[in-house]
Amino acid sequence: MTPDEARSRLEELRILIDDVDRRVVELLNDRTRVVEEIGRVKRQAALPIYEPKREDQVFANVAQSNQGPMTHEALRGIFERIIDEMRKIQRMRMVSEGEK
Amino acid sequence: MTPDEARSRLEELRILIDDVDRRVVELLNDRTRVVEEIGRVKRQAALPIYEPKREDQVFANVAQSNQGPMTHEALRGIFERIIDEMRKIQRMRMVSEGEK
Repeated sequence: MTPDEARSRLEELRILIDDVDRRVVELLNDRTRVVEEIGRVKRQAALPIYEPKREDQVFANVAQSNQGPMTHEALRGIFERIIDEMRKIQRMRMVSEGEK
Repeated sequence: MTPDEARSRLEELRILIDDVDRRVVELLNDRTRVVEEIGRVKRQAALPIYEPKREDQVFANVAQSNQGPMTHEALRGIFERIIDEMRKIQRMRMVSEGEK
């Protein structure tokens, strides 16, 4: 493969990555909306926001559906970050709703 | 909302989350396959594996397509982890191909 051929192949592959990433962003926004609704239901029913057992279920679901080539460890690392960022957003929402 | 009503609503919402998560897993595996192909092309053409400029493009693409409610900061945190985990997988592949 010549350097020019490599560069044009890389360009094609990056277009694929960008497309996948945009779909991931859409799903993460869908997920955030559901997480926000969960927060509202919990506040109305005075249920605890943080439930470590539920996190285990999330990791189990993700691991079970993983067909590879991504490793379970990598997936766990990514979902830890997803859960963590969504918890931060939930906390921000609680503060701003408390101020109303 | 009674505690029972809240619990059954939470159950419904968690089914939605699990479904979103399975679709995220599928996309992350698609992304990993493309990243692996990029690694192969780069090795064949002796191009550098790490390109910080390309990472900036990834973050720009993601930020541009973000319609919310997820914040840009949260999204950046998640994609930093995605890129990081995929880089680890690429490194593992390089080691194992070098051993062949």
